[in-house]
Amino acid sequence: MTDRKQLLLTPGPLTTSDATRAAMLKDWGSRDPAFVALTRRVRDAIVAIAGGTGTHSCVLLQGSGTYGLESAIGTFVRRDGHVLVLANGAYCHRIAAICEILGRPVEIYETAEDTPPDPAEVDRRLGADDGITHVVMVHCETTSGILNPLAEIAEVVAARGRSLMVDAMSSFGAIPIDVNATPVDAVISSSNKCLEGVPGIAFVVARNEMLAASAGNAPSMVLDLHAQAAGFEKSGEWRFTPPTHVVAALAAALEQLEEEGGVAARNARYSENCSILIDGMTALGFRTYLSHNLQAPIIVTFHTPEDRAFDFRHFYDGLQKRGFTIYPGKLTKIDSFRIGCIGQVFPDDIRAAIDAVAEVSAEMGLELR
Amino acid sequence: MTDRKQLLLTPGPLTTSDATRAAMLKDWGSRDPAFVALTRRVRDAIVAIAGGTGTHSCVLLQGSGTYGLESAIGTFVRRDGHVLVLANGAYCHRIAAICEILGRPVEIYETAEDTPPDPAEVDRRLGADDGITHVVMVHCETTSGILNPLAEIAEVVAARGRSLMVDAMSSFGAIPIDVNATPVDAVISSSNKCLEGVPGIAFVVARNEMLAASAGNAPSMVLDLHAQAAGFEKSGEWRFTPPTHVVAALAAALEQLEEEGGVAARNARYSENCSILIDGMTALGFRTYLSHNLQAPIIVTFHTPEDRAFDFRHFYDGLQKRGFTIYPGKLTKIDSFRIGCIGQVFPDDIRAAIDAVAEVSAEMGLELR
Repeated sequence: MTDRKQLLLTPGPLTTSDATRAAMLKDWGSRDPAFVALTRRVRDAIVAIAGGTGTHSCVLLQGSGTYGLESAIGTFVRRDGHVLVLANGAYCHRIAAICEILGRPVEIYETAEDTPPDPAEVDRRLGADDGITHVVMVHCETTSGILNPLAEIAEVVAARGRSLMVDAMSSFGAIPIDVNATPVDAVISSSNKCLEGVPGIAFVVARNEMLAASAGNAPSMVLDLHAQAAGFEKSGEWRFTPPTHVVAALAAALEQLEEEGGVAARNARYSENCSILIDGMTALGFRTYLSHNLQAPIIVTFHTPEDRAFDFRHFYDGLQKRGFTIYPGKLTKIDSFRIGCIGQVFPDDIRAAIDAVAEVSAEMGLELR
Repeated sequence: MTDRKQLLLTPGPLTTSDATRAAMLKDWGSRDPAFVALTRRVRDAIVAIAGGTGTHSCVLLQGSGTYGLESAIGTFVRRDGHVLVLANGAYCHRIAAICEILGRPVEIYETAEDTPPDPAEVDRRLGADDGITHVVMVHCETTSGILNPLAEIAEVVAARGRSLMVDAMSSFGAIPIDVNATPVDAVISSSNKCLEGVPGIAFVVARNEMLAASAGNAPSMVLDLHAQAAGFEKSGEWRFTPPTHVVAALAAALEQLEEEGGVAARNARYSENCSILIDGMTALGFRTYLSHNLQAPIIVTFHTPEDRAFDFRHFYDGLQKRGFTIYPGKLTKIDSFRIGCIGQVFPDDIRAAIDAVAEVSAEMGLELR
């Protein structure tokens, strides 16, 4: 279809496999038994990846990842609930904004974009305010690429008897999550990140008791996860027209994740991509924003070079001409750009991308070292 | 991909063209200029189909058609607004249910499932209650397949100075709508009906003044059409991750609609499909639910035969084995089933479907005449 394959080195939508895209070449009847069975397989596979088989359910939802977040907050936080959001990037702040729009009182515990939340401070805040019913955190904040300390936070939240919801948008499928070993009530992610599906589906892996107790909470028809889950349980069908081709692509992508060796193998591949990327870029004179111990193997933020010869548009276009699409920065205080490690991207692709960066840098006359 | 091609004779998701599905074989960067341009082309083409170029904007939204309806009601009906819903089927009642969930006062003017709303009665209700700010109607109610009198209702609503929103889910692209000649403030539809795209996108063609005046109304982040439109205007990008492959398929489908000869040509093809279907089924002894003058060329409801030999599961499976997927009925008071006329379906396909119905009927030992 394309003259040459563009590799998307972005946080998603990302590069998918030929087999995943080919799964979209068939039209499915959305109420047909074969499609009902396909939906069941996808839901079961996702719950299993989260370690929630038997305790949690996967509720699929039409839309982007943010739809999943809004639906989880609207469905699981009662109107008299109170949310503590742990924030160190744009996506955490988006969660707080959703709480405000939905009229759920929200408190933000903010740290700098390169600083993870301190579990002791979360504990202190929960101890000081009995009214806080839910804690919401982002697992990997793609604003910077930082990995937040899920296990430590989950322990504190569970000890205080509160509910934890995790935005695992850019980590699910690549960084292990076990919703029982690390107690989490809801994990929210989407089809088009580390599961390597195409965009169009969000999902929430939610604890069954919480789901059962949430009838009538949601201030929306389409974003009501209780009703959506009830629909799946009743007939196996989606309540509203599903993106059938996107579901088929996700089913294919989940099979490929299994064939690759599951989350551990995917984590290993992305980690290798990430190391090669950081080493190669550092050798060229670029500087990473995060220190190594905070970096998730998902997306890497680089400082924009101080050299005035650097022009992001030129850099972006030059890389794209060579087959690589990168991503602009999103930090609030520092000029940056980002390069992703996820998707159907392999160590040799990253090496080729580094070569392209070297070429474009030379073309711009950059003096990085 | 499939052993044999299944024709979906449903109200959508429906059978799409090979070219439309093939457009999904490429991965797009959602913030890439090429994808921004693709999005622009889709929005412009849809506004043009609605006759709204210059007066209306097309706001694309991730999700199913119902997401479009909920977003339009939440964004355009103020919290002190009051909605009159014209109801003669399940989809009209769904709109009323959305109003109730969103806390917008709603009044239902109900007629039987085979009876269109009477414009004079709409006029009477608007005259009797100055508080009604919006009228919402369904153009073609797929519960039965009835075509409701849009032009006559629009005239009455405009004369009373109220706002009209039309659920054109199953008619848009096949039954002409001109939002200026027939004054309509918002038309809501989706990618996977008569535009013959794949499911995953809803859209609202909204009058620009109304859109501009709607900031802050929506009780949702993701279903806020004002914010969504502002995002498109500002950068050309989607606010949240778009279903890139679904957008590409819709762009391809819109090009094919143009090549076919636009809405008039598509209407002619579907009308021919519909006539052949009704004539053929009637010749076999099946009876349509609607009289001919009320029937839209979208989907036809047939009475379930009274013959006890008829078994819907057998009928459905027998047709599917022969390559045709039909649709169950949805009428509240009468047993029925439905067969669609829309999608990449041509007169010869309908003739073949009639032959298959004859075979399966014989197999069941039906005595229809």
